[in-house]
Amino acid sequence: MGALHEGHLSLARLAHSLADEVVVSIFVNPTQFAPHEDFDRYPRVLQADVEKLGNDNHADVVFAPTIQEIYPAGFATRIVMNGPAEGLESDFRPHFFAGVTIIVAKLLLAALPEIAIFGEKDYQQLLVIRRLVSDLGIPANIIGAPILRESDGLAMSSRNAYLSPEERKVAGKLNVIVSGLCARLRAGETIPAVEKSGAHAVLDAGFSSVDYIAVRDAATLAPITSLDAPARVLAAATLGKTRLIDNMAVT
Amino acid sequence: MGALHEGHLSLARLAHSLADEVVVSIFVNPTQFAPHEDFDRYPRVLQADVEKLGNDNHADVVFAPTIQEIYPAGFATRIVMNGPAEGLESDFRPHFFAGVTIIVAKLLLAALPEIAIFGEKDYQQLLVIRRLVSDLGIPANIIGAPILRESDGLAMSSRNAYLSPEERKVAGKLNVIVSGLCARLRAGETIPAVEKSGAHAVLDAGFSSVDYIAVRDAATLAPITSLDAPARVLAAATLGKTRLIDNMAVT
Repeated sequence: MGALHEGHLSLARLAHSLADEVVVSIFVNPTQFAPHEDFDRYPRVLQADVEKLGNDNHADVVFAPTIQEIYPAGFATRIVMNGPAEGLESDFRPHFFAGVTIIVAKLLLAALPEIAIFGEKDYQQLLVIRRLVSDLGIPANIIGAPILRESDGLAMSSRNAYLSPEERKVAGKLNVIVSGLCARLRAGETIPAVEKSGAHAVLDAGFSSVDYIAVRDAATLAPITSLDAPARVLAAATLGKTRLIDNMAVT
Repeated sequence: MGALHEGHLSLARLAHSLADEVVVSIFVNPTQFAPHEDFDRYPRVLQADVEKLGNDNHADVVFAPTIQEIYPAGFATRIVMNGPAEGLESDFRPHFFAGVTIIVAKLLLAALPEIAIFGEKDYQQLLVIRRLVSDLGIPANIIGAPILRESDGLAMSSRNAYLSPEERKVAGKLNVIVSGLCARLRAGETIPAVEKSGAHAVLDAGFSSVDYIAVRDAATLAPITSLDAPARVLAAATLGKTRLIDNMAVT
């Protein structure tokens, strides 16, 4: 969606190391925003983005379509998903994944890339996209790329620009809490206990509200009761008007 | 869906005249049937179908996947449409077009053909598929092929095999009625009058019930009040346990 930070650029660099030609899409996709969300104020700095992508050959092509090019008059199709799209983000952003699936399907079919890279920052989105590509048989290999973080561990996000200096300090605590929860899970604390104390810790740190602190199966996002399979801690919390998400592998 | 008749074979022949290699899919798609519909008794004669397609080089490849290949465990995606998918068939088969869109998207993405041919017998389906391919940007050109008819004008359909000899006689009257409605529209009768008397004529001919007799815009299926743009008469009616559809261009 543009407003590129180092996290985005790391995806382009990874792509560049794996492929001969790299296409970067920049499109603030209206269908993944609810009316009350931040579509209008989402940062749009296309010229600066293109300049960043030109440095060090991050991208060979930047595809920055208009809304009318993506959703022309008469557009009538929606892609809806259950499975990995259920719960977590969907509980708080019910529009979100139908917006993600349609735009990702369209972008992948427009470019027909051999590989496509998505950040693990939007971890549930990554699993939704893997499922979409598998279910429809879109001929692309989906690659997840690790979260890039600021010096205090805050996951890089274009939405961090919304934060006041005070909020920015609080924001940096989310990753520390999530990391601590992972350690406590590895040390043997139960999943319900960790989820509950995690939510309290986020509120105590100064967040306005907690959408979820959840320990889930890392491959399916199904709720789990033990750490027999790879697990992931996922977090979403709001700070003033800004909603932040983060996630980490438990093991 | 197999149980090939001359209508299907005409599509394969058209494909053969337009393309170097022709792939025919045969798959009785469960997601486009409602629980009370004829999925279980739909005719399945794969060996005979393959033999027909071998004659005269109708097909280079027959793709006849299993249900598990198309919908493996964990399958979670649905494609829903408004616009051309609203009304008509959807009023009577609300599952239908979500089943059509997912299977057609998957088949097109599996084959990535330059062109794909669909019969005008399922006219609303043809428009839904055109919209699907346009909306998602599936790189295929959709070509509609004309309805093939029996000697009394009955549109060829695998479901005609369900008809008893008595029903078969009645079935042959549907196309005659639709053709007559087109003539009356061209002669200046109003659309509501033609739709109403068409429904009565179908019942008088011996059909058990009429789902719709509708005059619509041929490009969008929107209801119309005049014949300024190309129009189409679409009909669906039931005869015993068999549901038949037909359609014709008014002009």
